[in-house]
Amino acid sequence: MAPETPLGLQDIKAAAADALAAMRERRPRVHVITNSVAQPITANLLIAAGAVPTMTVSPLEAPDFAARADALVVNLGTLDAQRRSAIGGALDVVGEEGTPWVLDPVFIDVSPTRLAFAREILDREPWVLRGNPIEIAALQGADTYEHLVADRLALDVVSVVVATGAQDYVTNGARKLHVSNGHALLAQVSGTGCAGSALTGAFLSVTHDPLVAAVSALVTIGAAAEIAAPGAEGPGSFAWRLIDAMSALSPAELSRRAQVV
Amino acid sequence: MAPETPLGLQDIKAAAADALAAMRERRPRVHVITNSVAQPITANLLIAAGAVPTMTVSPLEAPDFAARADALVVNLGTLDAQRRSAIGGALDVVGEEGTPWVLDPVFIDVSPTRLAFAREILDREPWVLRGNPIEIAALQGADTYEHLVADRLALDVVSVVVATGAQDYVTNGARKLHVSNGHALLAQVSGTGCAGSALTGAFLSVTHDPLVAAVSALVTIGAAAEIAAPGAEGPGSFAWRLIDAMSALSPAELSRRAQVV
Amino acid sequence: MAPETPLGLQDIKAAAADALAAMRERRPRVHVITNSVAQPITANLLIAAGAVPTMTVSPLEAPDFAARADALVVNLGTLDAQRRSAIGGALDVVGEEGTPWVLDPVFIDVSPTRLAFAREILDREPWVLRGNPIEIAALQGADTYEHLVADRLALDVVSVVVATGAQDYVTNGARKLHVSNGHALLAQVSGTGCAGSALTGAFLSVTHDPLVAAVSALVTIGAAAEIAAPGAEGPGSFAWRLIDAMSALSPAELSRRAQVV
Repeated sequence: MAPETPLGLQDIKAAAADALAAMRERRPRVHVITNSVAQPITANLLIAAGAVPTMTVSPLEAPDFAARADALVVNLGTLDAQRRSAIGGALDVVGEEGTPWVLDPVFIDVSPTRLAFAREILDREPWVLRGNPIEIAALQGADTYEHLVADRLALDVVSVVVATGAQDYVTNGARKLHVSNGHALLAQVSGTGCAGSALTGAFLSVTHDPLVAAVSALVTIGAAAEIAAPGAEGPGSFAWRLIDAMSALSPAELSRRAQVV
Repeated sequence: MAPETPLGLQDIKAAAADALAAMRERRPRVHVITNSVAQPITANLLIAAGAVPTMTVSPLEAPDFAARADALVVNLGTLDAQRRSAIGGALDVVGEEGTPWVLDPVFIDVSPTRLAFAREILDREPWVLRGNPIEIAALQGADTYEHLVADRLALDVVSVVVATGAQDYVTNGARKLHVSNGHALLAQVSGTGCAGSALTGAFLSVTHDPLVAAVSALVTIGAAAEIAAPGAEGPGSFAWRLIDAMSALSPAELSRRAQVV
Repeated sequence: MAPETPLGLQDIKAAAADALAAMRERRPRVHVITNSVAQPITANLLIAAGAVPTMTVSPLEAPDFAARADALVVNLGTLDAQRRSAIGGALDVVGEEGTPWVLDPVFIDVSPTRLAFAREILDREPWVLRGNPIEIAALQGADTYEHLVADRLALDVVSVVVATGAQDYVTNGARKLHVSNGHALLAQVSGTGCAGSALTGAFLSVTHDPLVAAVSALVTIGAAAEIAAPGAEGPGSFAWRLIDAMSALSPAELSRRAQVV
């Protein structure tokens, strides 16, 4: 079903550039169930990348939107009763249809009920799981994070795991990649991490290769951040420059800037 | 109750300019029940235009806020159980008091339950219905959109119908207008269409003439977009420039830029 | 428990500067239950000031987030059933742990049910109550606002009351201060008042002195606004410049600009 991940690093960079070109041409629909704080910036970054986001968290509607979407994104921020129910219904639909989906288990280390829910939906086998090291360790019940924790998670239940950080780690258990794109200002704008996970869903909708999609999202938002940062005078001006840079980013520039080892 | 729509195109442009001047002077309260993604940009564009927005979607509160508002806006994005209940309660109040209201049936083509709800509240006779051609066709059960579908909807249940597009169509069934203001960047910023519908409500609160209010909102946000676009380097910088331009837009500039035929 | 408020005005300005320096160093966690419209700008302004905001309004999670937070902020905008329940649960936790908290009774003058809820949680004795004069009068059942109303509220149930305005009034019933920082553009950006209340919570988490925290938040956002305004061409460019200015504001600049009498 899913294409083979290209073997060489140059091939992965080329695949990322192709995926961006495909997104701009096909304009895939991505249904994003995410926290209310990150909704505006996530919507604007997805549009700038070429995707068409929808965002209802109503259990009455989410299955219909998921059924018509090319990918689903599940972000556990501000996880209330209606989001839980909407996620359940949307996952039923994408499970039946084989639609790719991404899980971002935001702040599961702070709330035991959120952690329990994250573990529950992990059984539905997300194509990509993306979180910070603390969240990934919490999901596995590990005391501290090490890359082995991410590898094991990828081998056991998830297709690809991304552990975000100054250098991001991408693994399917066998293949292991490190992405160094990005800028410190990203961490000072609320919602950019959540938008990065949503972007992973957008890339999944055009490549269907989880490793390529995970890398593509990281290098795309990372390259846009690198272009946006020099002109910014702080996180306020960085935020809109990031959207401008994402919108203007060409596939050629993307593969030129990609830092993947 | 509602004033007569002015007959000439010059009169309509003058009425739009007068309405903007009135909004800046009276600062009407507009209660906006809208989707969570569009809330921030909608609030900021309404304030920039001169209105005072409130946005609670709590069924316990929406009737009280609607009762004290000069207009109500009902946008069906992210339509969850509490929004449905809040809309019902708010419409009871504005129905009793004769408060003007606008309906924006966002994405009813994607969700059958949302479509059913839209048809239900259409019986409450919105002063203006504003959607894209696909949504208006879906509401009428038509296979494809043509202006006749909008005309019929206006004659049958709604006072004025707006079908948005590169050229917007405004009709009350008898009188038919085309508005050409705007810029392609508007479609690349999440929530600007929803904000345009909210602005229609704000104009209704000062003119009470649905045709003039519909045209005023289109030319106002369209003119602001035309002013904002030349300095923008992408959708990120366009978004804040749009708010600046809306805030600075004078009634004289509005009537000078209005493209209505 | 709480430290003594410094006596001289120079001492208060110095305490505000120290509090900002402490926030930048300690990066306190602040749990903010606020309205959906103000969430993005509140999150970004808190991050720019040095704090780490979380914002879930789920009753299942808010107590856990409050338990791990250094301060709690309760803003009554868009007060739906789940926010009420989340606020109740979070207040139980912070009451047990002695965590400082702030109440912003947004628009209680418009909705009787919201007013009743505000009075109910007032019994839990917020460390700081911050509202506009109309809201503070409504809370006390007074026909019109005068500073005496704020003083009495401070003496009776709340530690410190802030009545916001062109000149802000801060009182603990005995000590009375007036803060003149700020800019008219603040009122034209949706959510800045709510963000100011959230910032009060962030300052409480580092000083534990309600009077100093209330003043620190007012002078910090006010000074940032004064720095942001000259380069702004309207409320759109002012909003991101405000975030840039907040991020760059040094403790020394803060105490130099503080206008407190």
